[in-house]
Amino acid sequence: SKSDNQVGAFSSVASERKHHHHVPSRKAPDTEHFVKVTLEDLLSGVCKKMKISRRRFNKVAQNFFQEERVLSFNIPPGARNGTKIRFPDEGNETLNMAPSDVVFVLVEQPHDLFIRDECNLHTGCKIDLKLALFGGTLVIKGLKNESFSVRMEPMTSSLSPLVIPNGGLPEPMPSEEGEPKRFDRGNLIVHFEIELPKLSPNKQDTNTIKSALPGLGQMKVQYLPRQIFLQSPKP
Amino acid sequence: SKSDNQVGAFSSVASERKHHHHVPSRKAPDTEHFVKVTLEDLLSGVCKKMKISRRRFNKVAQNFFQEERVLSFNIPPGARNGTKIRFPDEGNETLNMAPSDVVFVLVEQPHDLFIRDECNLHTGCKIDLKLALFGGTLVIKGLKNESFSVRMEPMTSSLSPLVIPNGGLPEPMPSEEGEPKRFDRGNLIVHFEIELPKLSPNKQDTNTIKSALPGLGQMKVQYLPRQIFLQSPKP
Repeated sequence: SKSDNQVGAFSSVASERKHHHHVPSRKAPDTEHFVKVTLEDLLSGVCKKMKISRRRFNKVAQNFFQEERVLSFNIPPGARNGTKIRFPDEGNETLNMAPSDVVFVLVEQPHDLFIRDECNLHTGCKIDLKLALFGGTLVIKGLKNESFSVRMEPMTSSLSPLVIPNGGLPEPMPSEEGEPKRFDRGNLIVHFEIELPKLSPNKQDTNTIKSALPGLGQMKVQYLPRQIFLQSPKP
Repeated sequence: SKSDNQVGAFSSVASERKHHHHVPSRKAPDTEHFVKVTLEDLLSGVCKKMKISRRRFNKVAQNFFQEERVLSFNIPPGARNGTKIRFPDEGNETLNMAPSDVVFVLVEQPHDLFIRDECNLHTGCKIDLKLALFGGTLVIKGLKNESFSVRMEPMTSSLSPLVIPNGGLPEPMPSEEGEPKRFDRGNLIVHFEIELPKLSPNKQDTNTIKSALPGLGQMKVQYLPRQIFLQSPKP
């Protein structure tokens, strides 16, 4: 989500603001840099090192010069898309304004297998009708090298998802003072596409299935397909 | 969609702008009114009469008075959510500004059975497994009193939708000069939820189905469920 989350750890940096050779009345606007993060990065958190280029003032030579600087910071597990990480006064310097803050904005990268929704992950599985009808064991790949071996009960509806608790992303939890930070994890939610067998008419097996299968070959009810039109994750 | 569509028929009204007792340099900002429209309204178009209240200037008494006025307009078939219908100079009058335009903004109401996506409509159907496997005839309710009787082929996937051509909303088409306005219609797209029968273990029918059904009771592939996470219609 495009929330303006501030990573707590970096708020304190603001109080370390350095003293400058003059006290300008205005502050230059933030210098924003976008930082790509994968869902894998967000599972366990990641340390990023970003090289930035900034303009500084040389007091001796009385001129500006371009300087490269490496800023490093931790992206905590479960950080939200759009989270801002602020480095006060690390941006360009001008004569009449305080240097800008450098702000890194997390940009979550799309994943081949998972869609994120808060701390939950959604994925899909193609299965055959036999597994749907009679249940069985599935091995679902999670983020990084995780995999979940789950027993699936017979499905009652083709749209029933399978929920794997703690298969999602960590959710930063408020920790008691002195205690280490705890993390709960969201769910991994598996949606199914059932491959239906091609049953040739007038074959023995086809007739056998047709007469043994309950149901009348009918439509039951017409409805708004909310289950299919899930809210797409916020961009 | 929140597009700023202007209904063509009303653009010409601007040229009929009335002459006022003085020619003010500025124009008061638009007075917007929201008009609820149902999907049913949009199937064949609808004529709306809206009563508005506006402030006018009495030149004889040299004072302002409140006046009620009924404005009527056609909403053409297939009009988009957010379409604006403008009545120039029909709003409040002030001494030093030209009267505001009255602007009606179409607000599409959510429907119990259908989700609109441009000129297509999406709906859902709960069916039993027998219909999914062997096909059959369905009667799908459309907008207003429409209903579509369709032959459904055996489904190959639980997520395959059924597309009913011309079951959606009209799409205003550019018409040649002199010709009457033509309308094509979008599709009615039916998504299925297959109710799966509860097959008790160790029953004769259950064993019969299990052995006659092809497939191994296996997972086939893990994927990103794009079919399920359809883009939700633009708000």
